[in-house]
Amino acid sequence: MNKLLLKLYNNKLFEFVVIIVIVLSALLIGIKTYDIDPYYLSVLHLLDTTITIFFLIEVIIRFLAHPQKKYFFKNAWNIFDVLIVTISLLPINESEFAFLARLIRIFRVLRLISVVPDLRILVGALMKALPAMGYVLLLMFILFYIYAAIGSFMFENINPTLWGDIAISMLTLFRVVTFEDWTDVMYETMEVYPLSWIYYLSFIFFNAFVFLNMMIGIVIDKMQQEHEKIDLEQHTGQQAQLIEINKRLQKIEKNLVQNSNL
Amino acid sequence: MNKLLLKLYNNKLFEFVVIIVIVLSALLIGIKTYDIDPYYLSVLHLLDTTITIFFLIEVIIRFLAHPQKKYFFKNAWNIFDVLIVTISLLPINESEFAFLARLIRIFRVLRLISVVPDLRILVGALMKALPAMGYVLLLMFILFYIYAAIGSFMFENINPTLWGDIAISMLTLFRVVTFEDWTDVMYETMEVYPLSWIYYLSFIFFNAFVFLNMMIGIVIDKMQQEHEKIDLEQHTGQQAQLIEINKRLQKIEKNLVQNSNL
Amino acid sequence: MNKLLLKLYNNKLFEFVVIIVIVLSALLIGIKTYDIDPYYLSVLHLLDTTITIFFLIEVIIRFLAHPQKKYFFKNAWNIFDVLIVTISLLPINESEFAFLARLIRIFRVLRLISVVPDLRILVGALMKALPAMGYVLLLMFILFYIYAAIGSFMFENINPTLWGDIAISMLTLFRVVTFEDWTDVMYETMEVYPLSWIYYLSFIFFNAFVFLNMMIGIVIDKMQQEHEKIDLEQHTGQQAQLIEINKRLQKIEKNLVQNSNL
Amino acid sequence: MNKLLLKLYNNKLFEFVVIIVIVLSALLIGIKTYDIDPYYLSVLHLLDTTITIFFLIEVIIRFLAHPQKKYFFKNAWNIFDVLIVTISLLPINESEFAFLARLIRIFRVLRLISVVPDLRILVGALMKALPAMGYVLLLMFILFYIYAAIGSFMFENINPTLWGDIAISMLTLFRVVTFEDWTDVMYETMEVYPLSWIYYLSFIFFNAFVFLNMMIGIVIDKMQQEHEKIDLEQHTGQQAQLIEINKRLQKIEKNLVQNSNL
Repeated sequence: MNKLLLKLYNNKLFEFVVIIVIVLSALLIGIKTYDIDPYYLSVLHLLDTTITIFFLIEVIIRFLAHPQKKYFFKNAWNIFDVLIVTISLLPINESEFAFLARLIRIFRVLRLISVVPDLRILVGALMKALPAMGYVLLLMFILFYIYAAIGSFMFENINPTLWGDIAISMLTLFRVVTFEDWTDVMYETMEVYPLSWIYYLSFIFFNAFVFLNMMIGIVIDKMQQEHEKIDLEQHTGQQAQLIEINKRLQKIEKNLVQNSNL
Repeated sequence: MNKLLLKLYNNKLFEFVVIIVIVLSALLIGIKTYDIDPYYLSVLHLLDTTITIFFLIEVIIRFLAHPQKKYFFKNAWNIFDVLIVTISLLPINESEFAFLARLIRIFRVLRLISVVPDLRILVGALMKALPAMGYVLLLMFILFYIYAAIGSFMFENINPTLWGDIAISMLTLFRVVTFEDWTDVMYETMEVYPLSWIYYLSFIFFNAFVFLNMMIGIVIDKMQQEHEKIDLEQHTGQQAQLIEINKRLQKIEKNLVQNSNL
Repeated sequence: MNKLLLKLYNNKLFEFVVIIVIVLSALLIGIKTYDIDPYYLSVLHLLDTTITIFFLIEVIIRFLAHPQKKYFFKNAWNIFDVLIVTISLLPINESEFAFLARLIRIFRVLRLISVVPDLRILVGALMKALPAMGYVLLLMFILFYIYAAIGSFMFENINPTLWGDIAISMLTLFRVVTFEDWTDVMYETMEVYPLSWIYYLSFIFFNAFVFLNMMIGIVIDKMQQEHEKIDLEQHTGQQAQLIEINKRLQKIEKNLVQNSNL
Repeated sequence: MNKLLLKLYNNKLFEFVVIIVIVLSALLIGIKTYDIDPYYLSVLHLLDTTITIFFLIEVIIRFLAHPQKKYFFKNAWNIFDVLIVTISLLPINESEFAFLARLIRIFRVLRLISVVPDLRILVGALMKALPAMGYVLLLMFILFYIYAAIGSFMFENINPTLWGDIAISMLTLFRVVTFEDWTDVMYETMEVYPLSWIYYLSFIFFNAFVFLNMMIGIVIDKMQQEHEKIDLEQHTGQQAQLIEINKRLQKIEKNLVQNSNL
């Protein structure tokens, strides 16, 4: 029976049906945001239950078809799938947790990533770029924190809705960085402190500079990985030839020594 | 006669005349957007018909001059040209289809791409970058869809014009991503849900992150292609030298063996 | 006397004085934008004349010091300098041409580029990147033109200040591309044509896509130039070694043939 | 005792405690931006003094633990730390200098960079990219200055708040470059000078062009550094092999010459 499941699991049609059901579940979520007739709502509810059961069966099949059960949960995507299915099975459709139930159903759309191999590879590649960004984001956070502290101390009395405390100030600074009506913020404080444009412009420059370098850093990082791959490939080309040449020379040397010893 | 046509087709002057006529047809479209005297309008109409006929003749010449007729329609640009010419010949100048007739005339400007070789190469290169973007765009669509579903469920009662249904919510989110008055959208929902800034900031971060990586991905992709080209060239350089050295050594080996056997 | 001039011209101090005078002329322009006392204005006017005369003398020295007079005007920067100096000597301070006289004085700031060698190299490098951008800009212009024509035909009656004719429409589209209040433009037309968001979003996508590729194209282009430079350098490394090896082998071969002929 | 201090200094726990105290001092600054009870304020004040003393002790330990005292102040980060600690010890808590005292406390957050090695390396790398940007920023400044001078001369009478003098004009142009309500600025001047869109569009193009090239320039620059590193590594690979081959051939040559001389 295990073989049958494995066959089913590797079947392209089965994969296609799963994708269709996920897209259907996504459409269902979309439809629910529109005002719909109560009659159709019950139909949608039925469809919803069907999809939940389908997902349960699919995960069970995947688990049973897996050749080594203990490695099944080593895959983050499998854990994600099991979690989504388990939580959506819990009877949390009461009014209090209605929001949570809806959220779970929305997150089911993410299963598309775990099912389509190309998307899974792409997200995996994105994840690898994260560590390289870690310290740069920390650096940017320090920059935001320092400027927010200065802004809050200086401009609090001018406009407390923008500079009330350090949290609000950081949000205001994020707004400045996105260039969203940032001149309104600046002109307001420039009436009291005419030189406060230095504060804004230096902040924009620092951020653009750090962001620019982060972007370039990541490009260089990926580039280097490519380089190493190419180097490995070239070993079968130039490197192999060089090794062959060296071996031949060793043989000739020996031959010559023998000749001269004759 | 075929030879004459081919000669005409390859003539630089003919190419130049075609470009001039296309530019003229583009100018004609531009002029029509201005308020013009009815008298001149009839002149423009005459010019329009002349251009249509010119394009018809040009396409026929190109077809007849083509050495292998059956390959003529294998070129996407030729199909595009024939389509544009055929549709503009249809008598659809009635009031109902006036818009379509105008659209066809506007699309005639695109013929500039099919006629100027450098532009054709450039657009061809752009097309090659599309597949690399496909899955990233799908990933971004999933991100938009999930956030739009959450936004629609949570903020619908706050502002139905922005969060009415999932389609409108996606448009609102696109607006947020372009930083167009996005703080107005955020401040509105923050009055009800003070923590909703997490929703907006996380969305902006995710999108910037995915977009950034897409851009870098495409750069790396094109880079690798360049690398492969350079590698191919170097094979005629260093690789060729290494192969020659190996051959020489083989000859020396044989020579040495013969010498010692003497 | 020629030698004296050449010595003066190559003198670091002379170069420094010229830079100082250019910066001074720039400051003068800046000061004039402020409301100033009529007395100081006459002082400024005197300074202005002094700078004009200084520039005249400097250009003459540069010309006389140039070893080959006929090559002096082959340098675009020299032509630029002579032009700026000549025009500022013309008595065009009358009220009618006051604007032109001011413009010439402003453009004198650009002489900083022609005097500081590093800036001259930088601008030269920028110029080299221009041709690579040419066809991409043409492609973008075609995109703008087609969308502007469609926009003008469809939306003229909705808002003639934004879509009155093709020129105004192109300006509106440039505004959309810079994301400047673009949703206001879109929401306005969406009231009449609810599907017109397709028009805006497709335009933004096409432009971002073409722009992205242009940027990457230029990066790749410069990269390749770097590669070629590195290849040239490596020739003195690996390539030189390979050539030496081949020569040695040739000698050994000859030696072996002689030995066997003994 | 010196050894004990060095041991303490290299202790991971000590480093961890220092980081915790810096984060605590950062939190303290953040808390002070909120309205707090006078009672807690005195607690905060006490904590503040404790942190100041802790930092003093930490810097003294670092100085004493340093193996070569005279090199301690050659490190920019050490100078920064000593400066921050020294100034925060000065009794400047009077009302007049209250702002300065606060600023010093805020800058203490920057000590996080000097303590966490990864951040120190990152900031060091950022600093190295600065010189490459120097001349480009100068070029952009010249561009801003020239356009601001023209703008101030032409548009001063239209809107003195935006184009009053050269300084204000430069700020307005920076606003235009960030696309912040730039069309409002343009439409205003276009009412008087209908062709003034050329002024704005050319400025945006020039800036985007120069900025784009700066970004690419820095990418190429870092790329070349990577290349050189890779080349160095490859020398121990291919280059080393080639040198070995050449030496072997030399030996064979000598051997052959001896053989033929026998």
